[in-house]
Amino acid sequence: MPVRPKVVILGGGFAGLRVLKDLDKDLYEVHLVDRNNYHSFPPLFYQVASSGLDPTDISFPFRRRLRQKRMKDARFHLGEVKSVDMYRRTVITDNETIGFDILVIAMGTTNNFFGNPDLVDKVYTLKSTGEAIRLRNEVLYRCERAAIEKDPVKRKKMLTFAVIGGGPAGVEVAGAMGELKRYVISRDFPELSPLDITIHLIEGSDRLLRTMSIAASQTALADLGKLMVNITLNRTMKSYDGNVITLDDGTTIECGLVTWTAGVKAVPFDITGIDNPDTLFGHGGRIITDDRCRVKGLEGVFAIGDIGIFESDSYPHGLPQLAQVAIQAGAYAAQCLNSKSWTKPFSYKDKGSMATIGRNKAVADIKGTHLSGFTAWLAWMFIHLISLLGMRSKLTVLLNWTWAYFTYNTALRLLLKGSKYPLRGDLDDNG
Amino acid sequence: MPVRPKVVILGGGFAGLRVLKDLDKDLYEVHLVDRNNYHSFPPLFYQVASSGLDPTDISFPFRRRLRQKRMKDARFHLGEVKSVDMYRRTVITDNETIGFDILVIAMGTTNNFFGNPDLVDKVYTLKSTGEAIRLRNEVLYRCERAAIEKDPVKRKKMLTFAVIGGGPAGVEVAGAMGELKRYVISRDFPELSPLDITIHLIEGSDRLLRTMSIAASQTALADLGKLMVNITLNRTMKSYDGNVITLDDGTTIECGLVTWTAGVKAVPFDITGIDNPDTLFGHGGRIITDDRCRVKGLEGVFAIGDIGIFESDSYPHGLPQLAQVAIQAGAYAAQCLNSKSWTKPFSYKDKGSMATIGRNKAVADIKGTHLSGFTAWLAWMFIHLISLLGMRSKLTVLLNWTWAYFTYNTALRLLLKGSKYPLRGDLDDNG
Repeated sequence: MPVRPKVVILGGGFAGLRVLKDLDKDLYEVHLVDRNNYHSFPPLFYQVASSGLDPTDISFPFRRRLRQKRMKDARFHLGEVKSVDMYRRTVITDNETIGFDILVIAMGTTNNFFGNPDLVDKVYTLKSTGEAIRLRNEVLYRCERAAIEKDPVKRKKMLTFAVIGGGPAGVEVAGAMGELKRYVISRDFPELSPLDITIHLIEGSDRLLRTMSIAASQTALADLGKLMVNITLNRTMKSYDGNVITLDDGTTIECGLVTWTAGVKAVPFDITGIDNPDTLFGHGGRIITDDRCRVKGLEGVFAIGDIGIFESDSYPHGLPQLAQVAIQAGAYAAQCLNSKSWTKPFSYKDKGSMATIGRNKAVADIKGTHLSGFTAWLAWMFIHLISLLGMRSKLTVLLNWTWAYFTYNTALRLLLKGSKYPLRGDLDDNG
Repeated sequence: MPVRPKVVILGGGFAGLRVLKDLDKDLYEVHLVDRNNYHSFPPLFYQVASSGLDPTDISFPFRRRLRQKRMKDARFHLGEVKSVDMYRRTVITDNETIGFDILVIAMGTTNNFFGNPDLVDKVYTLKSTGEAIRLRNEVLYRCERAAIEKDPVKRKKMLTFAVIGGGPAGVEVAGAMGELKRYVISRDFPELSPLDITIHLIEGSDRLLRTMSIAASQTALADLGKLMVNITLNRTMKSYDGNVITLDDGTTIECGLVTWTAGVKAVPFDITGIDNPDTLFGHGGRIITDDRCRVKGLEGVFAIGDIGIFESDSYPHGLPQLAQVAIQAGAYAAQCLNSKSWTKPFSYKDKGSMATIGRNKAVADIKGTHLSGFTAWLAWMFIHLISLLGMRSKLTVLLNWTWAYFTYNTALRLLLKGSKYPLRGDLDDNG
């Protein structure tokens, strides 16, 4: 093959993986950089946290992907991106320095504690499988400890779980906790009563799932109510000291375990070798691009998926940070690189959005129509199953879901050794 | 139900779980104590280490077991046994104190470094799923780092793996590493050549698998040779400083990763409230019992499985530390407790032993006859599949094995976040 321009893709999420797939390997030498050696599936992290699935069920090794057809000599690099040197046109990771001709930044987002850095040591999060396993272990460990706790007050506090943020992630994890309370505890823990468990969901706006339809919000509210989740709207968490949550209206809640889903920011990294790099970053640390996903002010650099942002008439605050947007942007960026003549700006086709609350309970907005209940739940499962990478994952997830549905068992209720206690020490900023 | 004597079972391994199953719950109030909340399956730990299986595939939550039939009101306690107070007749764990009328000690074994305590921080082990995942991550991480290492000498050292101990565990993990070298590297790591990987297996005696037949030893030796494993017999590791292994004859081997399978000892705990408790412990810290599995000198205390030892004519050094012995001893102890009239001493029926070296390669000694190759390998898979607890585990393991067999892929080659670096910090002595 002739010497080809070297494209380096930072991040193997939905956006980066789609670029990797679509790029013409005869035109470009392609390199993928990720801090994990596998692609993971964030929409199902909450199911890992609630023992429904295993990390491996929703993860796919990049190197296996690179062996598949149309990948030619594409290469994978394990490493955490520290900085991009625009003068030397190199990426510096914790493992190596990689030169590039064209750069595609697709590293996504991480947790945002909005200037509450100390929260990081006190709350649980869901932005990686590691964080999900950590939450799973903590919930299971608290149930085991509560089972031998004689003092009812201490027991109740051990089992008071709060979820901050009423977006899809918050609704889904609160729903999963509700199912733990409703289906699991009474059967697995004869020492406990479902009433020993209290679940709070706290949302800052006036409705849950505010990116979805009013109908979806109302269904979610009702369904979570059926699962005995206490929902507080129009309130934000002002502080949490590890024992007591203080809301913005001064209300306090004694709470042993807080799951934070209330904010994300772009995965941080440095850009060097240019003047005022700060001007490249916009709201939430996202990288500002034009409507063709090209980073403003940088030559041959794209930013796509959750980490990129550009304003358009239909989306004055940028596109929503969704898997669908990332996938479509990935395909778009690849198309721009594959055919120089391609100049149509990127436009996002909304295929609808959905969230699941629990067994037979989900909501979906698809092109104006709102689905709920069993239908939406089936649709949700189907969409996520076919979106999973790899036949093996599809099979094991289907097996686990079917199993759980008919036995009311989540098969994987394991407190994994080596992570019996919070993994925080092992987790970096990005999870 | 009338007030029943309280039986406390320490350890939910093969022995303890069998006692739990067979004990008559109308006669006894039964409590199980384990440091994990799940039963695990040590014969397959090496497959977790080699990315063939997931911890959850070979683990089964105790609380689900306790919900099954004939379990009545049996209870589970999560906790690590610190000591047994024979005066108060209580067990002290890191979580609570539990009284007992009858005690069944079945905590098994842990790694034995034979007075080389510093080894614990330098070598990898295989006595728990946590340790297996730690080894898996280290192997994968070394391959990734080697893939970007330009210096061939450094690269070769990164990928020199030594396995100490030629018993079943050592042979199986060395075989799995051989398959990594033979099948995986060339396809997953175009940056590497199989020749970059060196695997050493070091055994102190004059043959591998010395508890099995000569034929089995010879087959294992030949099969590992085919997988390009360098085997050294009649040598023990005198020291390892993290970089260089020194053997007892002074030979040195530069080696980045050492897996230690060369010794076990009984899981340590204290016995208090009696005079000279030391006299209760025999070779390798095992608890001395009579031929009815009753701890000598203690009233109403049994010790079964790997942690118990008694001498008999056929086994002057005690029974071998095998799953079969543990299961049979568990059934025996339950029978003794269920029928007071039961006075027949425990006798072990040898059902044969087997080990697997790799794809289509295994050895089995069954009642004098020796099987090898594909037949033994199928037999090995069948026996282990039916021995797994839970239909779901059987299904997922079968799925993973079938998948791996036809695709030559081990599906789970994931470097799990939160354990990218050695988990040692999270692991206790017992792994």
